[in-house]
Amino acid sequence: MRANPFRIEARAGAARAGVLETAHGTLRTPAFVPLASTGTVKTLRPAEVAALGFEMVLGNTFHLFIRPGHERIARLGGLHEFMGWRHPIITDSGGFQVFSMGHGTVAAEIKRSGGRESEGRVLAIDERGVRFRSYLDGAECFMGPEESMAVQAALGSDVALAFDECTPFHADRDYTARSTERTHRWLERCVACHADGAPPGQLLFGIVQGGVFEDLREESARTVAASGVDGVAIGGSLGREKAQMAEVVGWSVSALPEDRARHLLGIGDVDDVLAAVRAGVDMFDCATPTRLGRHGTALVPEPGARWRLDLTAPASREAREPISPRCPCPACRDHTRAYLHYLARANEPTGARLVTLHNLTFMATLMEGIRAAIAAGDLERYAAAVMGGEAPY
Amino acid sequence: MRANPFRIEARAGAARAGVLETAHGTLRTPAFVPLASTGTVKTLRPAEVAALGFEMVLGNTFHLFIRPGHERIARLGGLHEFMGWRHPIITDSGGFQVFSMGHGTVAAEIKRSGGRESEGRVLAIDERGVRFRSYLDGAECFMGPEESMAVQAALGSDVALAFDECTPFHADRDYTARSTERTHRWLERCVACHADGAPPGQLLFGIVQGGVFEDLREESARTVAASGVDGVAIGGSLGREKAQMAEVVGWSVSALPEDRARHLLGIGDVDDVLAAVRAGVDMFDCATPTRLGRHGTALVPEPGARWRLDLTAPASREAREPISPRCPCPACRDHTRAYLHYLARANEPTGARLVTLHNLTFMATLMEGIRAAIAAGDLERYAAAVMGGEAPY
Repeated sequence: MRANPFRIEARAGAARAGVLETAHGTLRTPAFVPLASTGTVKTLRPAEVAALGFEMVLGNTFHLFIRPGHERIARLGGLHEFMGWRHPIITDSGGFQVFSMGHGTVAAEIKRSGGRESEGRVLAIDERGVRFRSYLDGAECFMGPEESMAVQAALGSDVALAFDECTPFHADRDYTARSTERTHRWLERCVACHADGAPPGQLLFGIVQGGVFEDLREESARTVAASGVDGVAIGGSLGREKAQMAEVVGWSVSALPEDRARHLLGIGDVDDVLAAVRAGVDMFDCATPTRLGRHGTALVPEPGARWRLDLTAPASREAREPISPRCPCPACRDHTRAYLHYLARANEPTGARLVTLHNLTFMATLMEGIRAAIAAGDLERYAAAVMGGEAPY
Repeated sequence: MRANPFRIEARAGAARAGVLETAHGTLRTPAFVPLASTGTVKTLRPAEVAALGFEMVLGNTFHLFIRPGHERIARLGGLHEFMGWRHPIITDSGGFQVFSMGHGTVAAEIKRSGGRESEGRVLAIDERGVRFRSYLDGAECFMGPEESMAVQAALGSDVALAFDECTPFHADRDYTARSTERTHRWLERCVACHADGAPPGQLLFGIVQGGVFEDLREESARTVAASGVDGVAIGGSLGREKAQMAEVVGWSVSALPEDRARHLLGIGDVDDVLAAVRAGVDMFDCATPTRLGRHGTALVPEPGARWRLDLTAPASREAREPISPRCPCPACRDHTRAYLHYLARANEPTGARLVTLHNLTFMATLMEGIRAAIAAGDLERYAAAVMGGEAPY
């Protein structure tokens, strides 16, 4: 096992504040990682993402494999160079996306978030991997553990994720058990492949599956921990209710080694982030803040509204106040809700950009507040303030 | 006649460098005015437009009348307040757009630029104005000189344009003569209406029409000049060839008073701007730089390629150089042509934004170079450098 790249610097109960060291710099945790699935945080320049305080983005193996292709990105110097982002990058393994195509509409259900879209079409799944059609041109493609590792090596990400099957909520115990075992066999192949051909300094995180079944989650967590990976991601179905998600995360975390970084895949709602941080999770990624932003929904410190303000609703039509008076983002500093309402309704790209900036400012501020509260031994008070609508601003 | 808001500070032949004073600050000329037709320079925040060096944007009476409606904008404090742009705004009168609907596809031909899209449908044109259907919801609308002035008063622009018929190139002499006379009658009504109800400090520019007919252009220029307007815009068909455009602009300018600001509507190609500046034009607006940017075509100092680089073409697929090595914009500073190629082909909004930033940087740099060259008495040398591909960078 390599030296642990994760260093815990402060604790508050099970929560930790720490630093993940990567080949392109450090990531302070707990951290939210914005999605740059297609090689761009949509509507933003890389320098803008960094200026917001983010230290890592997530690139997507599946999307970049389809377009522009990992080989082209490699010829152009790797993903950092290609997209002009000089800081850490984590790459999703592509497992979620290829299986979403097969699991179809339940993909949405998995993350309870509206989900990443199911795209393309699965032709066959077996021990080797998944055969599917490209959503771009219908070409037949294949991805398994070796292919995913090879793509992530070509992209040159700082953190690669093992190739897994992301089991949907509707899967029964038997399917979930067999799928989780296959994910474990795939993990072994990923570890071997990574040992052989990973770019210097690339970290590998394994993925805990096991659906909503306590013993499967615990067994998966132990298996992943024993595999020699640099960190652990928690994936798959986290249940139908928020309460169940906390339970599933708890089962997974309880069987993990204390000292390794833990990433919760696809989760980004404010209350979910808070609960997971308090359970000991260090990293998050989620499409929600950026996707909501593109569709005119702003994140606001209003727990009763699930932290969401739909700017396209009539209430904002002539509202002269900013989204949040205390928010320092350009949308709040320079613009009214009425203007953002208009831009969103008119599908103006400037609107998508402004609300994306706002939502990522919200997430950056929240995570900064969480890190500071852990360092100050004050997490419970801060969490209560967020849950009471008095934070993060 | 009010005090002339335009002050000439330097001359080079017929070219002038000057300052237009408006209620929201000054505009240094010769100036290029980016389009904010719908209340936003698409993909950019107002602060970004100002940071590029632009001092004025153009809002569109027709588009803002249709959506979100001038009354709403007035209730929200006017267009400056609505869009968060604290600098000068000129508003197009809407004449071009409502007549484009009637003249149909020839609208594209008028400006020889691919044209502003014809949208909606004209129901009737008469002495009062134009009855048409909204392209949004099919509602019947009416716009004539009084309505255009009322909308521009509600928007609170710094420079209003008189309502005119923009005659297309295919119009014959007889149609053009009758249309130009009506435009002159409409100008009188605009002047009266503006005297009655314009917001404090709003300037009014008349529009010279007359198609490609020397005597009509000269007569129109004299009529507009005599009407007491604060400045003059040159509109309508400027001919089929660039050479004819120079001729038409020359006829129009020759009959105008020396001391008033002159705006050439809808023109923005590099050679056209240079020719018009040397004929004595002070202001330009054009959709081309921003529209090309959204579709992946960059402005480059290559006269042989009409100053255009189509980044979506295969040549850029793996090109590791920036668009222009000497350009200071973020697209050139941080990104390769290969990345911009990919973003454009994938319809990523980040790509539209980056190339828009680049193209407006190109135009800002060009206009700054022109102003400096006039001040230095060096315009001919600068124009030759631009026409030889050695400027503006």
